[in-house]
Amino acid sequence: MSLAGRSLVTMDDLSNDEVEGVFSLADGMADSLGEQSSVCQGKIMASLFFEPSTRTRMSFEAAMLRLGGRVITAVDIGATSLAKGESIADMARVVGSYADIIVIRHPWEGSAKVVADYAGVPVINAGDGGHEHPTQTLLDLYTIKKERKTIKGLKVALWGDLKYGRTVHSLAYALARFGATILFRPAPGLGIPDHVVRKLTAEYGGELRRYGTADQSETGGLFSLDAIYVTPSTPHQLAMMADVSLQVELEKGVDAIYVTRLQRERRDAAKVEGDTRREYPVVDKRLLRERTFKETLVMHPLPRVDELAYELDADPRSMYFKQAARGVPVRMALISLLLGSKKADTGRDDRSRKPGTSHPAYNRGFGVRCQNRNCVSVNEEKYIKPEFKIISLKPLTLRCIYCEHETFPKYVASAEWHEGTLKSKRYHSSDSHWMKKIRPENLIIFDSESEAQSRGFLPGKYAEG
Amino acid sequence: MSLAGRSLVTMDDLSNDEVEGVFSLADGMADSLGEQSSVCQGKIMASLFFEPSTRTRMSFEAAMLRLGGRVITAVDIGATSLAKGESIADMARVVGSYADIIVIRHPWEGSAKVVADYAGVPVINAGDGGHEHPTQTLLDLYTIKKERKTIKGLKVALWGDLKYGRTVHSLAYALARFGATILFRPAPGLGIPDHVVRKLTAEYGGELRRYGTADQSETGGLFSLDAIYVTPSTPHQLAMMADVSLQVELEKGVDAIYVTRLQRERRDAAKVEGDTRREYPVVDKRLLRERTFKETLVMHPLPRVDELAYELDADPRSMYFKQAARGVPVRMALISLLLGSKKADTGRDDRSRKPGTSHPAYNRGFGVRCQNRNCVSVNEEKYIKPEFKIISLKPLTLRCIYCEHETFPKYVASAEWHEGTLKSKRYHSSDSHWMKKIRPENLIIFDSESEAQSRGFLPGKYAEG
Amino acid sequence: MSLAGRSLVTMDDLSNDEVEGVFSLADGMADSLGEQSSVCQGKIMASLFFEPSTRTRMSFEAAMLRLGGRVITAVDIGATSLAKGESIADMARVVGSYADIIVIRHPWEGSAKVVADYAGVPVINAGDGGHEHPTQTLLDLYTIKKERKTIKGLKVALWGDLKYGRTVHSLAYALARFGATILFRPAPGLGIPDHVVRKLTAEYGGELRRYGTADQSETGGLFSLDAIYVTPSTPHQLAMMADVSLQVELEKGVDAIYVTRLQRERRDAAKVEGDTRREYPVVDKRLLRERTFKETLVMHPLPRVDELAYELDADPRSMYFKQAARGVPVRMALISLLLGSKKADTGRDDRSRKPGTSHPAYNRGFGVRCQNRNCVSVNEEKYIKPEFKIISLKPLTLRCIYCEHETFPKYVASAEWHEGTLKSKRYHSSDSHWMKKIRPENLIIFDSESEAQSRGFLPGKYAEG
Repeated sequence: MSLAGRSLVTMDDLSNDEVEGVFSLADGMADSLGEQSSVCQGKIMASLFFEPSTRTRMSFEAAMLRLGGRVITAVDIGATSLAKGESIADMARVVGSYADIIVIRHPWEGSAKVVADYAGVPVINAGDGGHEHPTQTLLDLYTIKKERKTIKGLKVALWGDLKYGRTVHSLAYALARFGATILFRPAPGLGIPDHVVRKLTAEYGGELRRYGTADQSETGGLFSLDAIYVTPSTPHQLAMMADVSLQVELEKGVDAIYVTRLQRERRDAAKVEGDTRREYPVVDKRLLRERTFKETLVMHPLPRVDELAYELDADPRSMYFKQAARGVPVRMALISLLLGSKKADTGRDDRSRKPGTSHPAYNRGFGVRCQNRNCVSVNEEKYIKPEFKIISLKPLTLRCIYCEHETFPKYVASAEWHEGTLKSKRYHSSDSHWMKKIRPENLIIFDSESEAQSRGFLPGKYAEG
Repeated sequence: MSLAGRSLVTMDDLSNDEVEGVFSLADGMADSLGEQSSVCQGKIMASLFFEPSTRTRMSFEAAMLRLGGRVITAVDIGATSLAKGESIADMARVVGSYADIIVIRHPWEGSAKVVADYAGVPVINAGDGGHEHPTQTLLDLYTIKKERKTIKGLKVALWGDLKYGRTVHSLAYALARFGATILFRPAPGLGIPDHVVRKLTAEYGGELRRYGTADQSETGGLFSLDAIYVTPSTPHQLAMMADVSLQVELEKGVDAIYVTRLQRERRDAAKVEGDTRREYPVVDKRLLRERTFKETLVMHPLPRVDELAYELDADPRSMYFKQAARGVPVRMALISLLLGSKKADTGRDDRSRKPGTSHPAYNRGFGVRCQNRNCVSVNEEKYIKPEFKIISLKPLTLRCIYCEHETFPKYVASAEWHEGTLKSKRYHSSDSHWMKKIRPENLIIFDSESEAQSRGFLPGKYAEG
Repeated sequence: MSLAGRSLVTMDDLSNDEVEGVFSLADGMADSLGEQSSVCQGKIMASLFFEPSTRTRMSFEAAMLRLGGRVITAVDIGATSLAKGESIADMARVVGSYADIIVIRHPWEGSAKVVADYAGVPVINAGDGGHEHPTQTLLDLYTIKKERKTIKGLKVALWGDLKYGRTVHSLAYALARFGATILFRPAPGLGIPDHVVRKLTAEYGGELRRYGTADQSETGGLFSLDAIYVTPSTPHQLAMMADVSLQVELEKGVDAIYVTRLQRERRDAAKVEGDTRREYPVVDKRLLRERTFKETLVMHPLPRVDELAYELDADPRSMYFKQAARGVPVRMALISLLLGSKKADTGRDDRSRKPGTSHPAYNRGFGVRCQNRNCVSVNEEKYIKPEFKIISLKPLTLRCIYCEHETFPKYVASAEWHEGTLKSKRYHSSDSHWMKKIRPENLIIFDSESEAQSRGFLPGKYAEG
């Protein structure tokens, strides 16, 4: 299996078999960390951090140096080229002519894709805003796999800030892909967002089971919410199963608990209520005394604040420092694969589940824009044409190919209209019956009436939803 | 040809043959970028950036790493040692004892010369305020040479902000040295400064041809201004040539157009008028459709803002990303030459034009100071003695040896006066007839009357100009 | 002699013989700086600078690179992980899993000890607030040793800001350990603090000799203050010697003068009086003309401000740039020893003076806290338990094991009380006669009455001092 020349922007860029390939190479490298210094000799990695993240950056750089490669680093880059008005695309092209591989961290969602599109060398996304941070997900998965030998069929509880935690969303998708059951234990007001649940169920074959307030008392308030069950072979089978109470599930024990801190820096600071901090669920010795957690791996992407007690550090179940340490061999494996310095042998053909389903593209480049103000396509509109996947027609749902945020445009028209005169160019509500009449290849989508009108369209009879 | 132990502070530090030597070595290195890793093994480069410039820094560092050398970097240096009151000279000495070569970027003009004076190891100027950035000029020239095989006789148009663009001034001098014709197309109010034109004509043998408003209509407003013609062998021959209209020149085509962005960061921000932005000339597809530009190389030092349209990126005439990429082999060649790790064979003796003419020095250390507030000699006066070259006597013109700004002092006196008593010590206007009476070795120069008087001189009869 | 796996947090971590071992290895490395590139091949050093210090960082990094090792650097770390609320201990653990050795600079006193406690790899303190910067002391000592062949019996004058100068305190202890005589010449109001004098006399066998105002006129105001004499073998012998005037001492000449700048950044800026600046003693040509300084080494840790004149730079007695340069081989020696890549042969057994005397520990973890607001134990109280050494019982003096600041708690109680009921639990003034009655292993110490009472203790009869 060769990954030479490829980029890793989202976890979906790798098939399950490719992920296993990275893991098997990482295993070998972890066993002889000091003997890899000829693998990437003569290669240069550029690490471009538009946002500080010392831990992630150092892990990547240590990985490249252990492989015998060299590193050029920019942590000051935000203050400089952006100030001069440089585009991400230009920066990517220039740095791509200096280095053999680029690691990029940038606050705009979708920015890593733009770098990968323009750099001409492999690019690894080290975090693009609230979007993705795939190597974190890889090392999380790797730790579970390493400790439990498999991921399929495990029960993994996600804990804390499930709303803003980028790593937790990516991990959820990945767990679903590998057939784990996911239990949610959010802090008050920080539940898993609908769009994540939708993606888990619609694209990764998960089955949502809701446990109402009734169950809360039953489980001591621990898992007051929902769970995603995945059976990779027959995704919808579970729906037909007899109901199993959460209590029964939990009695069998949770395999891993993944704790996240309150993501203050991704939120409007003013919105962080004192209450949220006070009510944030803490993982400590007392909790881990419960039978449910008897053999549970305690995981955390770090840094932690107060949600994970220091008293657990010596507990053999605590995995968080091991996670961090394993980031180095995982990144070594990944870098050497993308640079083509190594091949991975998975011993199988790639029969693995392909992430996501194939959605039709919408790329007219006008009429509709990504509604996420933090999306790279919005911030670099000078040269980036908006582009979407059509996730659903009812309700009409577009997903930005850069930041993957979903938008729900209200108006549509057809490109193949009677006679083509202005008079006959009409736009309609996207939830009217006209939606069905427009052939997909003719679909024109508008954010707003004014957008439609500016393109010369007049309101149709069903312009109002 | 050996450059071992030398520094590159300004382009004038290299003869034309030495420049060619750098280029020929760069050619070889560009062809086998991955095979140079033993050239500078064991050597350390310090890259000291008192001002952020990620692109330039990364290019230097990638160059050193490709040569097998290692890098210590300081981008945080401004905030630290300056805060503690450290001088540039001390910093240079200390870092010179850690590293084998220093790359320095600093906002004060002339600072790179001070570093070179004190470091004890080779120093490369990576930009000292508005003064020089010679490796940018080298890679610009290298790109032209590489694409056109020669520089002599080419017609190169300089475009945009010709007033504050450091790179554009350096390039102009270098083009003149190599015998190219230079055409100016400034943005409104951002014309090439007089002192640059003066230096081009007086020191690099250029001949200025002015094209008045009449020509403007003739050339469609493209080249509303002037051109510098250089014939290296007989510089003044052109003046005797029959007048050739600019139109005829342009019909033969321009070989390269060098576009610069509005240099906002070097200017008083308040002075950037909205008008300037609006009227800034843009290079785009429409412009390049003209016959004049049919085979023109489109160059830009990057980063660009709006003056160069993205639609040109795929055009084969676009050179700007190639320029950036070529910075690496050019800097590899330069670093290895200065470190003495390589010699360059130019196949010729050094018969090349020596840049500039030899001007007498003025280094009494008192009476007159550089008038450029951004000059290193003004900011580090604790240990730097003002020093000048006397460029002209009428009008009396001094050029600071650090920042190369010119000053026009108003008063002079003689060091050899009758008896040496106070009564006979008089100062005179520098444009009075006394100027001729003072022998050069006796010349004392004063900024102001108060300065003269503070040294014990009294006003002479011709103290008023 | 092997130092493999050890850390260097304070100078006291090394015995005198170990220091000599570092110096002898540094000698060899300095002679062949370019031939050490296989010593630490494959090893990674993390340099973590929570406070900028370009000079120190570059010296460490150059040292590691000259040894063939590689470096990951974080100067941005303060802005990032601290903002996310990460603890120093967590950071140490994580980085310790990436790198083979850590160099840490942090503004909190005692922070380097915490890093060393948690990292799992050797740690070098590159400055922890006002506490220690042991490699600076090593290179200072090394320079004296190199120039004078010995340290024992030399007369070294400490000059300038002796109050806030961290390097000057560490150097004083080290000089005392190696048997030098120390003369003090403080700037007005910046004399050597009592606790330093106390430590010099009590723990390093020094003998303080005070020279009153009478001597001031005698010595021309040069050494208006005191001196520490050390005779390593019989520390108290000097007290019995006949009085020798300072004048006689000085006439024999001072071997080295160690100049420090006004430590503005460690002080409350508002407290820096204009007077202090004006009266700060300056070392210049005029001073060095005195017979006392005829063969004196002029030393300075750099950066300098105005206390050391530029006119001395060419003087052969000036050592400050040599000091800086020698930091590289000293650090190379140290790094290679701590990594176990080298052993040092000192040719002797370790019969050397052990720094400090052995004080009993006080580590109940409650009742008393370090009074230094800049101490790591105060700032990271979440997981660091206060811990002290009991330096003296009368007055009761505790020294924090992290920052080494001394506190003088006012109240004590005994852990072995009749029946153990509340009624019989009493606290007493620490300078009352009760102090003697409590057996050391039973001693409980309180900062304040309220602290004692919050633990259930009642005031005893001698609660008032």
